Amino acid sequence: MKLRVPDILILFLLGAGASLVGDHSHVVTGTTEYFTDAVPFVWSSPIWFPAMVGAATVSLAELRLHLPNPRTTVTARQGLAGIAAVVGTYVTTALVHSAPSVPGTTLIVAMAVITWCTLGDTPSVVCGVVAAVIGPIVEIMLVKVGVFAYNADSDGLFGVGPWLVPLYFAFGVVVAMLGEIAARERQPEQVVV
Amino acid sequence: MKLRVPDILILFLLGAGASLVGDHSHVVTGTTEYFTDAVPFVWSSPIWFPAMVGAATVSLAELRLHLPNPRTTVTARQGLAGIAAVVGTYVTTALVHSAPSVPGTTLIVAMAVITWCTLGDTPSVVCGVVAAVIGPIVEIMLVKVGVFAYNADSDGLFGVGPWLVPLYFAFGVVVAMLGEIAARERQPEQVVV
Amino acid sequence: MKLRVPDILILFLLGAGASLVGDHSHVVTGTTEYFTDAVPFVWSSPIWFPAMVGAATVSLAELRLHLPNPRTTVTARQGLAGIAAVVGTYVTTALVHSAPSVPGTTLIVAMAVITWCTLGDTPSVVCGVVAAVIGPIVEIMLVKVGVFAYNADSDGLFGVGPWLVPLYFAFGVVVAMLGEIAARERQPEQVVV
Repeated sequence: MKLRVPDILILFLLGAGASLVGDHSHVVTGTTEYFTDAVPFVWSSPIWFPAMVGAATVSLAELRLHLPNPRTTVTARQGLAGIAAVVGTYVTTALVHSAPSVPGTTLIVAMAVITWCTLGDTPSVVCGVVAAVIGPIVEIMLVKVGVFAYNADSDGLFGVGPWLVPLYFAFGVVVAMLGEIAARERQPEQVVV
Repeated sequence: MKLRVPDILILFLLGAGASLVGDHSHVVTGTTEYFTDAVPFVWSSPIWFPAMVGAATVSLAELRLHLPNPRTTVTARQGLAGIAAVVGTYVTTALVHSAPSVPGTTLIVAMAVITWCTLGDTPSVVCGVVAAVIGPIVEIMLVKVGVFAYNADSDGLFGVGPWLVPLYFAFGVVVAMLGEIAARERQPEQVVV
Repeated sequence: MKLRVPDILILFLLGAGASLVGDHSHVVTGTTEYFTDAVPFVWSSPIWFPAMVGAATVSLAELRLHLPNPRTTVTARQGLAGIAAVVGTYVTTALVHSAPSVPGTTLIVAMAVITWCTLGDTPSVVCGVVAAVIGPIVEIMLVKVGVFAYNADSDGLFGVGPWLVPLYFAFGVVVAMLGEIAARERQPEQVVV
C-alpha cells in the first residue's frame, strides 16, 4: 500500500459520508428503493453501502498511486472542488431521475467531462474507467438479486440508471486526485496550497 | 470607507439588480410569497428588498477591504464569472425549491463550494460566513413578522429555505472579490484584464 | 478558407452530432415539436437540422480565424470542456423548458457567461453574438412557416425559447475556440496539451 493509515481512514470516511448524502437523495426522490432489512440502516442506506463506497474510494486512490506520474502540484483547494463536483453531480442524478434518459444522462456526462477537463490527468482516466465499469456492474448485480431497484423512469441500463456510468467516472477521476493529494502531503517541501 | 462613491453606486445597483431577478424567480416559482403591500413594489419585490441587498453588497465589499491581503490580481473577467455564478445559483434555488431538501440544498452547497474554490481566497470566507449568518437570520425574522413566507416545500430552516445558507455564502465570497476589483482599479499600474 | 478539409469535416460532424443529441432532448421533453415529414428524419430531427448546425459550426470556426489574434495556446482539453459545456447547456434548456421564463433563461445566461469567462476571448464575442442573432432568427422563421413549434411554456421570444439567445452565444464562443484549436494544430511546434 502506498497510502498510509490516516489517509486510508480519511478517504474511507469521506467516500462513506458522501455516499450517504447521495444515496439518501436517491431514496428520498424515489430514484431508488431498497427491499432489504437484513442489516442495520444508516440514514437511508444499509450499512454495507457506505462501507462499499468507502472501500472503493480507498482502492481507487491507491490505484492512482500505482499509475505513472502522480502529480505533486494538486492542491487541497482542487480536492475540495472535486469533492463538491462529484457530490453535486450525484445529487443532480437524483434531481433529474424522472427526466427522459437522453437529456438527463447527457447532463451528467457533460458534468463528468468538465470535472475531468478541470481536475483530471491522463492516468486518472484509468481510475475513472475502472469505477465506471465496476460500479454499475455491482449495482446491476444487486438489482438482479433484488436488494434494491431503480425507478422505472431511470433503469435503462440493465435495471440501473444510465447516468451511473458518468457519475462513477467522475468519482474515479476525483478520487485519483485525492490519492495524489494524500501522497503529496507526505512531502512537506512540496506542499502547494 | 475604502470604497469610493462610484464603486459604492455600482455595487449597490449590481446587488439590487441581481436581487430583483432572483426574487422574481422565487415569487414566480412559488418559492416565496409576499404578504405586504405597505410599500411600492419593483417587479416582484417590495422596494426595501433590493435596497437591503444593495446595501449588503456594498457592506460586504467594504468589509473585504478591511481584511488582510486584498488581492490585486483578480480580473474583471473573474468578477463577471462570479456574478454569473451567484445569479445562476440564486435562480437554481428557485428551480429546485420543490425538490426534497437534502438533494436540493446539497446541490446549492456544491455550487457555493465550487464558487469559492474557483474565485475565493481565505479572507473571503469571512465575508461568506457573515452573509451566510446574517442573511438567513434577517429573512427568518421577516418571516416571523409575516412579511413573506417560504413555500412549505422549502421552509425547513426556521421557516426559510436551508439553501439560503450556501447561497448567501457564495454571495459574500463573490462580493468580497468585487470589492477587491473595485479597489484594484484605483491602481492603474496594476490593472490585469 | 483558413480551415482545411479534415478540420471542416470534423467540425461539421461534431456540430451535427451534438445538435442531434440536443434536438432529441427538446423533442423528447416536449420542448419542441416538428410538423414536417417532408424529409427523412435522423433520430428525432429532420435531416436538414443537423446539416444546418454542422454548417454553422464550420462557418463560425472559419469566422474566428478571420478575426484578430487567434490564440495558439488553447488546448484540446479546453476544446473538450467547451463542447461539454455547450451540450450540457443545450440539454439543460430541455430540462428546464417548463419552468417560468426568468429563472430558466437566467440559468442559461449564467451558464453561457461562465463558459465565455472560462474559455472565450474578446473576438469570440463576435462569433457568439453572430450565432445569438442569426440562430434564433432562423428558428423564428421556421416556426412562422409551421415547420416546428416550441411548447407554449417556452415560446416567449417570438415563438421560440428566450434561452436560445444565450445557448447560441455559448455555441458561437466555443466554436470560435474550436477554430483556433484546428488552426493551431497545423503548427506542431506550438502544440500545447
